[in-house]
Amino acid sequence: MAVVLTHNTYGKSNVRLTKVTRLPDRHELAQWSIDIQLDGDFAASYVAGDNRNVVATDTMKNTVYILARDRDLTDPESFALALGSHFLADYPQVALCRIDIRVEPWKRIAIDGSPHPHAFTGAEGGRRTCTVKSTRTERSIAAGIDELALLKTTDSAFRGFYRDAFTTLPEVDERIFATMLKTGWVYNETASDWNVHYAQIRQTLLQIFALHKSLAVQQTLHAMGAAVLETCPAVEEITLAMPNRHQLLVNLTPFGRDNPNCIFVATDEPFGLISGTLRRE
Amino acid sequence: MAVVLTHNTYGKSNVRLTKVTRLPDRHELAQWSIDIQLDGDFAASYVAGDNRNVVATDTMKNTVYILARDRDLTDPESFALALGSHFLADYPQVALCRIDIRVEPWKRIAIDGSPHPHAFTGAEGGRRTCTVKSTRTERSIAAGIDELALLKTTDSAFRGFYRDAFTTLPEVDERIFATMLKTGWVYNETASDWNVHYAQIRQTLLQIFALHKSLAVQQTLHAMGAAVLETCPAVEEITLAMPNRHQLLVNLTPFGRDNPNCIFVATDEPFGLISGTLRRE
Amino acid sequence: MAVVLTHNTYGKSNVRLTKVTRLPDRHELAQWSIDIQLDGDFAASYVAGDNRNVVATDTMKNTVYILARDRDLTDPESFALALGSHFLADYPQVALCRIDIRVEPWKRIAIDGSPHPHAFTGAEGGRRTCTVKSTRTERSIAAGIDELALLKTTDSAFRGFYRDAFTTLPEVDERIFATMLKTGWVYNETASDWNVHYAQIRQTLLQIFALHKSLAVQQTLHAMGAAVLETCPAVEEITLAMPNRHQLLVNLTPFGRDNPNCIFVATDEPFGLISGTLRRE
Amino acid sequence: MAVVLTHNTYGKSNVRLTKVTRLPDRHELAQWSIDIQLDGDFAASYVAGDNRNVVATDTMKNTVYILARDRDLTDPESFALALGSHFLADYPQVALCRIDIRVEPWKRIAIDGSPHPHAFTGAEGGRRTCTVKSTRTERSIAAGIDELALLKTTDSAFRGFYRDAFTTLPEVDERIFATMLKTGWVYNETASDWNVHYAQIRQTLLQIFALHKSLAVQQTLHAMGAAVLETCPAVEEITLAMPNRHQLLVNLTPFGRDNPNCIFVATDEPFGLISGTLRRE
Repeated sequence: MAVVLTHNTYGKSNVRLTKVTRLPDRHELAQWSIDIQLDGDFAASYVAGDNRNVVATDTMKNTVYILARDRDLTDPESFALALGSHFLADYPQVALCRIDIRVEPWKRIAIDGSPHPHAFTGAEGGRRTCTVKSTRTERSIAAGIDELALLKTTDSAFRGFYRDAFTTLPEVDERIFATMLKTGWVYNETASDWNVHYAQIRQTLLQIFALHKSLAVQQTLHAMGAAVLETCPAVEEITLAMPNRHQLLVNLTPFGRDNPNCIFVATDEPFGLISGTLRRE
Repeated sequence: MAVVLTHNTYGKSNVRLTKVTRLPDRHELAQWSIDIQLDGDFAASYVAGDNRNVVATDTMKNTVYILARDRDLTDPESFALALGSHFLADYPQVALCRIDIRVEPWKRIAIDGSPHPHAFTGAEGGRRTCTVKSTRTERSIAAGIDELALLKTTDSAFRGFYRDAFTTLPEVDERIFATMLKTGWVYNETASDWNVHYAQIRQTLLQIFALHKSLAVQQTLHAMGAAVLETCPAVEEITLAMPNRHQLLVNLTPFGRDNPNCIFVATDEPFGLISGTLRRE
Repeated sequence: MAVVLTHNTYGKSNVRLTKVTRLPDRHELAQWSIDIQLDGDFAASYVAGDNRNVVATDTMKNTVYILARDRDLTDPESFALALGSHFLADYPQVALCRIDIRVEPWKRIAIDGSPHPHAFTGAEGGRRTCTVKSTRTERSIAAGIDELALLKTTDSAFRGFYRDAFTTLPEVDERIFATMLKTGWVYNETASDWNVHYAQIRQTLLQIFALHKSLAVQQTLHAMGAAVLETCPAVEEITLAMPNRHQLLVNLTPFGRDNPNCIFVATDEPFGLISGTLRRE
Repeated sequence: MAVVLTHNTYGKSNVRLTKVTRLPDRHELAQWSIDIQLDGDFAASYVAGDNRNVVATDTMKNTVYILARDRDLTDPESFALALGSHFLADYPQVALCRIDIRVEPWKRIAIDGSPHPHAFTGAEGGRRTCTVKSTRTERSIAAGIDELALLKTTDSAFRGFYRDAFTTLPEVDERIFATMLKTGWVYNETASDWNVHYAQIRQTLLQIFALHKSLAVQQTLHAMGAAVLETCPAVEEITLAMPNRHQLLVNLTPFGRDNPNCIFVATDEPFGLISGTLRRE
């Protein structure tokens, strides 16, 4: 029987990088977790154990630390581009390099309202990510947010959906809308300052979530994505995934009490999962 | 600015189903976790909050329990096919239905070597999965194993790889090969008994892992995939992902001791991640 | 052989309570996870399956929702006290009631700098907890913080420790000090406003961590605990546990580069674990 | 204000040790995760940053690897005793040494029914643990099992419990009994072969769980603990904790179907938590 290797990729995951930059008035801190994946001329290793083309994943790890020493870590996107350029420039056997970076969300401790120059605590609301794919002719730059917890206590309805013999869900005008947003967007050529874009997109997402009168999770997702495209011309496409972390109204009737949208039980499972991708026409 | 919704999908995740079938001589137990995702004519919900076509995810959950009551749960693949058929048959607005099932690994408690008729404990070695995608014209049936821990203490080398100024990894003839296999395969039309196929594929993977003289994780991955294709004609394609959970030799020289491939420290990160897809030619 | 049941306790864990209080100008949100454990005259259930004294754990869950409907949820401590009083008052067979509450860290989304009246996102820095133990004659009220991430990039040394033939760690004047604080404190009779105390203690911990010139994790832990006792007279005793999440200096010498306390690899394991309890004399 | 340090302890956690013993006919594999905690004369480090008595946690880590090189790793209990003896013998400032070991559950891959000499996969059913506390005059040796999944589909009732206005739970003669056992026991002076004891205790727990006609989780817990004390004279005391991972009967009446104890939804939370300690009289 003939077997063919139709796809292969390999690399190093969870390379943990911390860089401290000691400026006169403050320390800058970057703590990132980095994944590297290479596609290219590596089939001989799979088929025959011939490793001559194989860049050891240990070497990839070393490369992260070396490039981090040589460069300023202003933003994860630039560093991912630099890693991609390095692997393509130094290794002719590499056709495609994919870099994923997750940013540890540190923020400065505030003392009497002032940010401390070298002490940090965990920041609120989500984890910044980026994904850069580089080949010798093209590259795509994407960024995103993981695990952004969102909840609103009103302005969320779900009515007029399809009903049949398997449907028991009542229509509601008021429900808690709780989710853990995961989103990623692709930048176009006009993108300039990744940190500015990120802050603006994050704030847009929070704001539209808060202000939207939701007729469905789907509709709010669409409104949030559309607002990002409208606000940030550097974004070409955005994908959002919103688990519907249902909070169920507790039945207090057996105990002689009403429950006017007041007491809920939060659930993790099962959960609705709503996804959508929007782009400029 | 014009915004277009280029893709959307939604559904219910982690629907937990347990079915007990009370036979005269024993109880059969199935405990599965099920995800449902639908593609189709749902854009109006996203764009305008018009939910007329929306099958509530709560209804999807109900459907799991109703169909599980009506049918024998012989294997997850058949049940996923039945769910797909149901959603396509009852809802004209559905174009594609994807079902993912994860099987909770229960095995019977053994007493004096005999399996008990109604008491169970956690089974060894990995979690069975399946993914069925159904449209009105086609369907694909895939199965897999998640979190299959594997380790061998010898017959694993890594030599002759590419070296440059960023390379410090020594070549080795002997190392511990430890991984947590995640694999999925696509069945062709000849597939008949999903349980028989699963057991055979799982055993083939374990056996080849044990017997292979590895020159690279890549090579062992390829050998395992090729063996599955050779052993099970019902498999059309297989993808394997093997994290290389490095176990590092501890340097005992500072303490006046040698370490002849004896004492290691297991690490979770960073890890190599090797993937490949093989199919019949 | 005679067997004796020397201790027993039982209850309900992870009762998830959400309460929304709809005020004219804003909604108040409390999302808590609650554990209840009862000690008392329950041995007959263990020894003979005689459940006459057993308060079903399902009833405990109901009780959480009923009392939450009847009361204002101003702070977790008051609610834990109310739960304890209820179980002791209604069930003569209960001798001791322990309530643990974990607070989901929501904060209002800010729009143009103003907190939104009904939309929330995940808050920074740690999770508030409390533990109340009630008997018919005594009660203890403890509170705490879990998972408070802390990191400082300087003002942390570790010198002058014990050395022997098994010691290889170099002395350092500068290291990254990274931890995930877990702390709990016991209130005395002077405690009045649990929310005010909590905010003050949390800020004290952050501030001392930032400002302390650390000669050992132990010393910083002691300084933080002592400051809490000094700042908040309502605290009788405080326990702190600080994992030392080592960040290791990367050796860049093989690559012709120095590393002046600049590039580190964050590690999760192994970790130092330093604990201490301080109280007023 | 006077502050006093009433308790302190410190050490190293999650030291991951793998030892391969290469015998002529097979390789023996031990993969353990080890925590060390020392109590003693360490207050000066907390109070004044005086580290002269402090054994660096890095030294503790080295010690694990050195002693593992020097000794046979026949069982975790012996190794924990050796570590305790070492820390007490070499460091006069240590008063109490606590060692916790968790055993990674590897088992040999079977090929044609024969165990392979050097290839392993994840074993079924729970993780072996031990805890040894050593002082200069005493030592206690405890062992246990974590995360032992157990489920029975019949022979579990819950009737006759206390009812009041807050009780809605129906009495049942038949329910699924699902738990994740965590248990620990203390050996007495007659203990001889820790591996034999462990295997016997584990089998006893499985067997009694399977055979017991349960009137309450409490009663089954007691029966399991009593059986261990009866079967294994080397056990002085045993503690069991059994979360009641409720599987709820699904209401299929709205869909015109009955549910004769057949279709359930597994839940993780809230869960009952039942604990008890038994000892010889």
